[in-house]
Amino acid sequence: MNALYDVAAIGNAIVDVIAPADDAFLDTEGLSKGAMTLIDGAHATALYARMAAGIEASGGSAGNTVAGIASLGGRSAYIGKVADDSLGGIFAHDIRASGAHFATTPLSDGPGTARCLINVTPDGQRTMCTYLGACVELTAADVDPAVIEAAKIVYLEGYLFDPHEARRAFAKAAGLARAAGRQIALTLSDAFVVERHRDALLAFIDTQVDVLFANETEICALFETSDASAAIRAIRGRVEIAAVTRSEAGSVVLSAGAEHRIPADAVEKVVDTTGAGDQYAAGFLFGLASGRPLDICGRLGSMAAAEVIGHYGPRPGTSLTDLARARGF
Amino acid sequence: MNALYDVAAIGNAIVDVIAPADDAFLDTEGLSKGAMTLIDGAHATALYARMAAGIEASGGSAGNTVAGIASLGGRSAYIGKVADDSLGGIFAHDIRASGAHFATTPLSDGPGTARCLINVTPDGQRTMCTYLGACVELTAADVDPAVIEAAKIVYLEGYLFDPHEARRAFAKAAGLARAAGRQIALTLSDAFVVERHRDALLAFIDTQVDVLFANETEICALFETSDASAAIRAIRGRVEIAAVTRSEAGSVVLSAGAEHRIPADAVEKVVDTTGAGDQYAAGFLFGLASGRPLDICGRLGSMAAAEVIGHYGPRPGTSLTDLARARGF
Repeated sequence: MNALYDVAAIGNAIVDVIAPADDAFLDTEGLSKGAMTLIDGAHATALYARMAAGIEASGGSAGNTVAGIASLGGRSAYIGKVADDSLGGIFAHDIRASGAHFATTPLSDGPGTARCLINVTPDGQRTMCTYLGACVELTAADVDPAVIEAAKIVYLEGYLFDPHEARRAFAKAAGLARAAGRQIALTLSDAFVVERHRDALLAFIDTQVDVLFANETEICALFETSDASAAIRAIRGRVEIAAVTRSEAGSVVLSAGAEHRIPADAVEKVVDTTGAGDQYAAGFLFGLASGRPLDICGRLGSMAAAEVIGHYGPRPGTSLTDLARARGF
Repeated sequence: MNALYDVAAIGNAIVDVIAPADDAFLDTEGLSKGAMTLIDGAHATALYARMAAGIEASGGSAGNTVAGIASLGGRSAYIGKVADDSLGGIFAHDIRASGAHFATTPLSDGPGTARCLINVTPDGQRTMCTYLGACVELTAADVDPAVIEAAKIVYLEGYLFDPHEARRAFAKAAGLARAAGRQIALTLSDAFVVERHRDALLAFIDTQVDVLFANETEICALFETSDASAAIRAIRGRVEIAAVTRSEAGSVVLSAGAEHRIPADAVEKVVDTTGAGDQYAAGFLFGLASGRPLDICGRLGSMAAAEVIGHYGPRPGTSLTDLARARGF
């Protein structure tokens, strides 16, 4: 069957609140720099009140990836739960305006749309606190088989292991994709997510995942080692393709027959690393869906990641299609 | 009486939705580039659906000015009407986080928080469509005498002539300020605002205004001429101080005894002109409240305007205090 979409993604549908902060603020708030911490609604309200003035932008890891794929000219679809409120309206508008298909019914009479409070330190590092809100109401019923079966690759975020019911959505999507002969991709998302759900993630990887994305911290967390090289050796052979990102050191792409070392693209000034991993995945998945070799997939990932860390916000600020064309990809 | 605040401002409390657009989009939508058009809720929904993905940021002309004054180290207060919704929460958070006093009771059971849909073309020009929402419920009762009487300067935006009841708020604030021996400043805001309310604005200027801000288009509209020099001559003597901004040509500051020609500050790349006039007013008013000579007030305005047009969003992205210190102001 021909695929209507290059990628269908399932994720936590989140609006980001992005504000500058200094290291002392992170210390005072007890936040671990660069990580994602789950917080409840009361904590979100209290933390927000102490944060600096910011901007709001649609986020969510897989949502950012889908927007990146659309910016590259790829066809994508997104499944995720917002509430029927103004932040939910913003999320829905932005993902549709990026060119992605998005038809998940918003939640009424429940928690509000999820918010991720992101404190960006002067080094460009982002530290995230997420109130999941309506995301916890994503269920298997929200996974539309027509969307999953129509996508070359189904992309799932590890963050979805946190809201309980979303795991069933995960399992349903994987089953549908497998039956339709589609590829299944997963990102580990965050080292603390891996700590919380290591066994479930490993079982899912071994039984369902074709393409795995992780950064060095996450892959180390998965194999309970502090040796990134050992962790990378450990993932080889457990999935068809693994792409391990290494910040300014680029990425390593492993497949059965090869190992590619992909350099990072130069960035004039790192403004805000929010969305770097998401955009790497966007470039890589777009390349994969369009049949490019793995080293080009990695370079598309480097290109998209470099674009997003040069400005505030987690989604492309310029046309990735134009950037890719300028580089002859 | 000592003043607790340098500036107390009254304005339409608005959250901006800022997205990229091309000139063809403005044509298709029938929008006049660089202007502010009032739209109703249905139009706002329809226009938003056709806009590109964007970011959200607290805006509102006087709100932006107050945030700029706070960034310069000035003490400011703001009066404006948001709704009791998530956008209203964002507005209130941001203006308080900037350091300004804000205590206007939010509106319940009425229209939502005002939104300004801003399409930014590749030349950096912003074209605005405003849905006033809760702003139309700002009344004289919202003008707290304690705030007005405690400010050296009361700053009013011409945009407030659009919501009907806000004019009474205007009149009350001006009366309180006059009685307390404070200065009253006004910005004309927009040429179409001047067209709609010319007689009322002229009457207000002649009877109440000490300090007038306008750009060349607005001052021309006020005096129904296309000759900016003639319009500038016409305002001389009608107010104590007039500051007329001229985009990249800088500004002209007039007072009874003098005329200062202030150059614009160099900008590496004009990204988004949203907030340029608001930040000019911030720099100027901060200078005035702190007793600096008028040419320095104008240069502080140029400095603050140049900072804000170098990035997306209508409020300072960096500390204006640090910038001013670096220049020896």
